[in-house]
Amino acid sequence: MATNNYIPKRPDIIDCNIEKTLDVIGGKWAFLVLRELFGGTHRFGELQRRIPAVSPRALTSTLRHMEEKGVLERKVFPTVPVTVEYTLTPKGEDLHQIIMEMKLWAAKWT
Amino acid sequence: MATNNYIPKRPDIIDCNIEKTLDVIGGKWAFLVLRELFGGTHRFGELQRRIPAVSPRALTSTLRHMEEKGVLERKVFPTVPVTVEYTLTPKGEDLHQIIMEMKLWAAKWT
Repeated sequence: MATNNYIPKRPDIIDCNIEKTLDVIGGKWAFLVLRELFGGTHRFGELQRRIPAVSPRALTSTLRHMEEKGVLERKVFPTVPVTVEYTLTPKGEDLHQIIMEMKLWAAKWT
Repeated sequence: MATNNYIPKRPDIIDCNIEKTLDVIGGKWAFLVLRELFGGTHRFGELQRRIPAVSPRALTSTLRHMEEKGVLERKVFPTVPVTVEYTLTPKGEDLHQIIMEMKLWAAKWT
């Protein structure tokens, strides 16, 4: 994960670049993982329990993609068995407003 | 499409119902179709040209899903060849804030 992921650009010019956002948080499960991690750090097993519909394989793939995109950090502790924790980066925390708007829309219209 | 799609509920209680929003606008193409329709009514062929990466089949499927969910209206004019126009409903227009937040995030972080 590049360090410059952590330096937000000034949005002087807002391009029509929602594709770039979709590339990071697109897919069925990323939003649901985000929602859980806004509440704080979670272990893999906790995420699995909180999102019962996701398979372990799909959850692993989603977490790996989000880590590559710099929106979450994965920490491994050398316990027996190994403990793996996931935490949002500032780039990931900043997705909060999108999720809030999605909740608001659902509350109004569904 | 039920008439009550057009009567927004008061968001007194914002549930964690982003799944409901994802059910409506989830999928790779719905966001891109929305972005085009925020600019106004478009014909099928115009949408196809503006989103070159989408296949006609995927575009048809996306438009049908969005129509079923009440976020757009499809009007057919009996010209030769037939003219089909797509326009956002108020429920669809109200997705604008989500898209704006996605653009803002992309401008800051990508």
